[in-house]
Amino acid sequence: MTLIILGHPNYENSLANKTIIDELQASDLSVEVRNISQLYPHYQIDTVEEQAALLRHQNIVFQYPLYWYNMPAILKQWFDQVLEYGFAYGSAGDKLKGKNFIPSFTVGAPEAEYQTLGEHHFRVYEFCKNLEQTAYYTGMNYVEPFYFYGTSLNAGYTELEVRSKAKNQAQELILKLRQFE
Amino acid sequence: MTLIILGHPNYENSLANKTIIDELQASDLSVEVRNISQLYPHYQIDTVEEQAALLRHQNIVFQYPLYWYNMPAILKQWFDQVLEYGFAYGSAGDKLKGKNFIPSFTVGAPEAEYQTLGEHHFRVYEFCKNLEQTAYYTGMNYVEPFYFYGTSLNAGYTELEVRSKAKNQAQELILKLRQFE
Repeated sequence: MTLIILGHPNYENSLANKTIIDELQASDLSVEVRNISQLYPHYQIDTVEEQAALLRHQNIVFQYPLYWYNMPAILKQWFDQVLEYGFAYGSAGDKLKGKNFIPSFTVGAPEAEYQTLGEHHFRVYEFCKNLEQTAYYTGMNYVEPFYFYGTSLNAGYTELEVRSKAKNQAQELILKLRQFE
Repeated sequence: MTLIILGHPNYENSLANKTIIDELQASDLSVEVRNISQLYPHYQIDTVEEQAALLRHQNIVFQYPLYWYNMPAILKQWFDQVLEYGFAYGSAGDKLKGKNFIPSFTVGAPEAEYQTLGEHHFRVYEFCKNLEQTAYYTGMNYVEPFYFYGTSLNAGYTELEVRSKAKNQAQELILKLRQFE
């Protein structure tokens, strides 16, 4: 039922994203995880394979760390290559219509910095409009993003804190996915 | 003085972006164009080379077509790899401070669609906040993006129209670059 497009170029060393994925896989939900960085190290996405995966599922989760207020390049490549004319949009491009578009990401810095006077100046949702409009344009149902702040151990967070917040995020996501079942 | 990071995965068949680049190269400005799709077909950016190029210039232009309300993956990869801790941000990461950050892109659909009730629902500037905040975080001077609508021949625009609007954009950009000299 649920496809997880995992877009993390350094997943082996990931703490937050790995915890979320582990939690999803340990749940009783039926999930298919596609680690696209591992599948496509040279960024040559197999469009046919990816489109076939999309057709198998109703819920599409995009799991990634926020890099430069945006998705990592490997995930952008996935969007650029997979959401083709005639498949995702255009007169006959209705293959994604009605599916759920569910962003789930992690944010390094603390919440207080994502405010006008903070170091990152904008609220996180202000960086998500390209996602939202991508969902609309493909006829998908945009679900408000799941995310938490403070994944960066350099910013003083402990592994325990990050793991605990990641588990919370995964549980909220699982709750939402159950509602869709 | 001016570095142009050209992020276009299909530049050979480009009309709008190619016209802009040709116009810039035909001007009396001193420009260095780096076609990163051509330089890095497997998306393995040479960070040292790219950082050295940045150090040579005061004005950094990002030239690309808008794909899914965002930059193409190759340009995102450039940001992800080149703007490293210790170079672009962090306690000693002040190498880009004071340089001009100048987005210049092209938009396929007509302007009327980039409104709340239009097909694309948002104004173009709403999709640019990640660019703006990337500039702030690296201490760069964010210049309002240069762009024009209607590059898509499928949407009924003629080659002549696209070329003429692209030339206009290039001329406005050249004017701005001269002011910085």
